[in-house]
Amino acid sequence: METVNKYIEHTLLKADAKSEDIEGLIKEAIENKFLGVCINPNFVKFAHNMLDGSDIKLVTVVNFPLASNTIETVLFQTEAALKDGANEIDTVINLSSLKDKDYKKVASDIQRTKEIAKDNILKVIIETDLLNQDEIIAACKCAIEGGCDFVKTSTGFVKGGVGAKIEDVELMYKTVHPYGLNVKASGGIKDYNKALLLIKAGAIRLGTSSGVQIISK
Amino acid sequence: METVNKYIEHTLLKADAKSEDIEGLIKEAIENKFLGVCINPNFVKFAHNMLDGSDIKLVTVVNFPLASNTIETVLFQTEAALKDGANEIDTVINLSSLKDKDYKKVASDIQRTKEIAKDNILKVIIETDLLNQDEIIAACKCAIEGGCDFVKTSTGFVKGGVGAKIEDVELMYKTVHPYGLNVKASGGIKDYNKALLLIKAGAIRLGTSSGVQIISK
Repeated sequence: METVNKYIEHTLLKADAKSEDIEGLIKEAIENKFLGVCINPNFVKFAHNMLDGSDIKLVTVVNFPLASNTIETVLFQTEAALKDGANEIDTVINLSSLKDKDYKKVASDIQRTKEIAKDNILKVIIETDLLNQDEIIAACKCAIEGGCDFVKTSTGFVKGGVGAKIEDVELMYKTVHPYGLNVKASGGIKDYNKALLLIKAGAIRLGTSSGVQIISK
Repeated sequence: METVNKYIEHTLLKADAKSEDIEGLIKEAIENKFLGVCINPNFVKFAHNMLDGSDIKLVTVVNFPLASNTIETVLFQTEAALKDGANEIDTVINLSSLKDKDYKKVASDIQRTKEIAKDNILKVIIETDLLNQDEIIAACKCAIEGGCDFVKTSTGFVKGGVGAKIEDVELMYKTVHPYGLNVKASGGIKDYNKALLLIKAGAIRLGTSSGVQIISK
């Protein structure tokens, strides 16, 4: 196993983040050789300038966190974020269509987003806190059908939600890995032991705001 | 005072809302003669078709709830929502620029959004749960400068947040009303007494998912 820092996407998605907070996040990511940073679209240009010449992945989120946008907006956001310098896109799955059991629409939205993302990694957040086990499997199947690169557990913004659960990551891994997709765990990852358990369960990426704390054990 | 139902924007913004939930919301709004419904952009076309011929306002949200988008995305979302049939737009103020004290950018974003919204009502959510009193005043001044129609207290999505507070609505009213702007209170409005107190404090709109409960007292 690689050291844990190479799994971490150092994350700051708070509504009231200031420029100096994003600056601090990026400095920490560089110092600790994290795999990436994950920030909101309004800071992508700023972060891209700061990261210039670094191999740290610049990850951003679209249709986040409520999956409340039309697919046209999702495509616009994705294209704009890549143009601004993002390397990877984490989008929230069409949760309303998933709950409506309109799996064709869910998969089609993912496919259209991947067409815009092209060779850039596209992760689909399935928001496990709002799904039962059958729905987690259905969401994973839509992700496979849509041709994205990762399924991701959580936005971290569900009220009363717990985020990445070991058993959910195991189920997601079991469902998508045979088809070549990977798993990102996110939400509520605050210590080294939890990080290790999630990696054991199949996650190759960890989205967390506690990266520095995690690697200092 | 008009009866309370004429203050209410019947609201459903949950990530996992199904089509039948939106359908139920609209039926309740018609039955109870609410002023409007407030729903996510991905349901605007659907709601517009259902509301055809009704005088209930169709309100939607953009840059919601994290204010995490670039202004280009906000303008795209606004234009698309109006095209889909929305009558009013509730957008979240540029919270990061507000925290950075870049008031010129905050006001400019509002102004550009209002240019797209044209004669349609534009409300700016200032997210009082994340602001102190000075910041609430600063946000209101940016709203005045930007030329929107309403300031609104809350998205309802801040973890640990309480939503609309009487004293915040009073402060917002005092700050914006001399300039012809109105106040919408939203978040945590669950009973008739709270509704009355917010109206007394200066709100002429109430965003709530408890409208039916509120008018039945």
